[in-house]
Amino acid sequence: MLTLDDYRIQIESAIKNLKFPEGKLDSLYNPIKYALSAGGKRIRPVLTLMAADAFGQKADQAVMPALGLETFHNFTLLHDDVMDKSEMRRGRLTVHKKYDENTAILSGDTMLTLATQYVSEVPDTLLRLVLDSFNSMAIKVYEGQQLDMDFEKQSQIDLNDYIEMIQCKTGALLGACAKIGALVGGASEKDADKMYDFGLKTGVAFQIQDDWLDTFGDPTTFGKNIGGDINNAKKTYLYVAALQQDSQTAEALRDAFNIPSGDVRVKAVTRLYEKLGIGESTKKAVNHYSSLALKALNSTSLSDDKKEVFRKLAEKLIGRKK
Amino acid sequence: MLTLDDYRIQIESAIKNLKFPEGKLDSLYNPIKYALSAGGKRIRPVLTLMAADAFGQKADQAVMPALGLETFHNFTLLHDDVMDKSEMRRGRLTVHKKYDENTAILSGDTMLTLATQYVSEVPDTLLRLVLDSFNSMAIKVYEGQQLDMDFEKQSQIDLNDYIEMIQCKTGALLGACAKIGALVGGASEKDADKMYDFGLKTGVAFQIQDDWLDTFGDPTTFGKNIGGDINNAKKTYLYVAALQQDSQTAEALRDAFNIPSGDVRVKAVTRLYEKLGIGESTKKAVNHYSSLALKALNSTSLSDDKKEVFRKLAEKLIGRKK
Repeated sequence: MLTLDDYRIQIESAIKNLKFPEGKLDSLYNPIKYALSAGGKRIRPVLTLMAADAFGQKADQAVMPALGLETFHNFTLLHDDVMDKSEMRRGRLTVHKKYDENTAILSGDTMLTLATQYVSEVPDTLLRLVLDSFNSMAIKVYEGQQLDMDFEKQSQIDLNDYIEMIQCKTGALLGACAKIGALVGGASEKDADKMYDFGLKTGVAFQIQDDWLDTFGDPTTFGKNIGGDINNAKKTYLYVAALQQDSQTAEALRDAFNIPSGDVRVKAVTRLYEKLGIGESTKKAVNHYSSLALKALNSTSLSDDKKEVFRKLAEKLIGRKK
Repeated sequence: MLTLDDYRIQIESAIKNLKFPEGKLDSLYNPIKYALSAGGKRIRPVLTLMAADAFGQKADQAVMPALGLETFHNFTLLHDDVMDKSEMRRGRLTVHKKYDENTAILSGDTMLTLATQYVSEVPDTLLRLVLDSFNSMAIKVYEGQQLDMDFEKQSQIDLNDYIEMIQCKTGALLGACAKIGALVGGASEKDADKMYDFGLKTGVAFQIQDDWLDTFGDPTTFGKNIGGDINNAKKTYLYVAALQQDSQTAEALRDAFNIPSGDVRVKAVTRLYEKLGIGESTKKAVNHYSSLALKALNSTSLSDDKKEVFRKLAEKLIGRKK
């Protein structure tokens, strides 16, 4: 197997080689090229290539499905940015800011169909299975986004709801990346499903860790500003875990969030989280989902050295920017 | 074969029987049910059922792909309405007006994936062919919508550009409906491609006729207000045909469109069209594309009585509300 960087380079070069109609359709395809060129770790398609490779097929057999999954991911970011009115992503203007909202909607739609086309570039014998995995995953992602938007309007959420939401919104895609790669690699359906579970649980651990970092991370290595979630009153794992305690705590939490956004609010909420031991219980949840992911990985028929490569990927993903 | 009404009833009942998750995901799925329940002639899925039936397979084998094509059509209307800021459709509030814009974007995305799932409910031996037809059609529809949006900002368009745009935006979907139905019915790829051409050309004739009706139609039978396109300064076949005459005519046309929207503008533009014989040349174009459609239909291996049913469908579609 290759290094993570080798796989990433393979993806970057495949993205560069994608051909789109030029000329009068530039207004549709330039935003797509812009969205796909944002770079990043390309963790999702890398996982697909790795899985294909691990189960016996050379990674380049899985490049098109991997690109499809990356295109799908970027499509969801594009439409999410419109819905959230986000202006920046990865240090650049979002598509609807650089172009306009209609362009972002229509180019996003086009990306979803392109993603389906790329994912379908698998042998005929695998098409049904791969396509079904992809479409079910996509539905889960939309459901997760809807649940997330609904949460922002609800005063009562419990941790089960929260976990379900991030399983859909973040976990399902990583699960599908691992599963589709495994299928292309020649894995049995049973192994492919276990790889799905590995991706899913890794995604959940990753998202909870991301929530933790936003409050307790090291500002010198965390990519975003510490306290962003608190300032935006985002319903994170930390918030929901605190809310679920007794009614007195819930009230104190709401009071702290009633402070106008800024350093004072961030400090007040963080102090409350510390008092309640939310940092520790959140870390416990990260570890819990990480071990579930490893349990799924260990139950596959992969050799130990191959398991080790996925273990390192998960570690890198979850343990990042502590 | 059955009557158009029989096929339509089959579609309506299949839509009613669609199952969606209930409860907390209502905010995602209720807008989809609302969009799919708008009724109408269901011309597109009816064409799919008819084609399946004509080529030998009972229509109910094609119900799911037909539903997929209808779901796709409604997804494009939903996103187009957001982009055009339209408030009403078929006498009801549009989805983004009844709910909100974010709901319309996300429920639309979900409909596109649902459409792909429904269309994929064909035998394994047909999956690749059906899926490829569906995805290529979808890309054409987005390209057509982009060309249409770009036209509104351009001062120079010629009739070839206009025809290309409506081939993509209106023709490709009717083509895919006929082709996918034919494939499910057991048609050869050659016959299926001819049916695509029949649908494509019928769609073009239909769209040009629709442009004609908007200016020259009978107000008592035309569904919308006469002159709507002129009032909205829409780039129709009539407008483009007039614009492409000499520069003096183009100037007179621009002058007429500079009159504030209302009856005076509608009368001035209509008078100019009449003087130029645009009504007649538009009718000629409708007839031209109708005969191309019939030529494609006649070149299939279908029996004469079956061809007759499609001929009547095209006539009904194009000759409507004269």
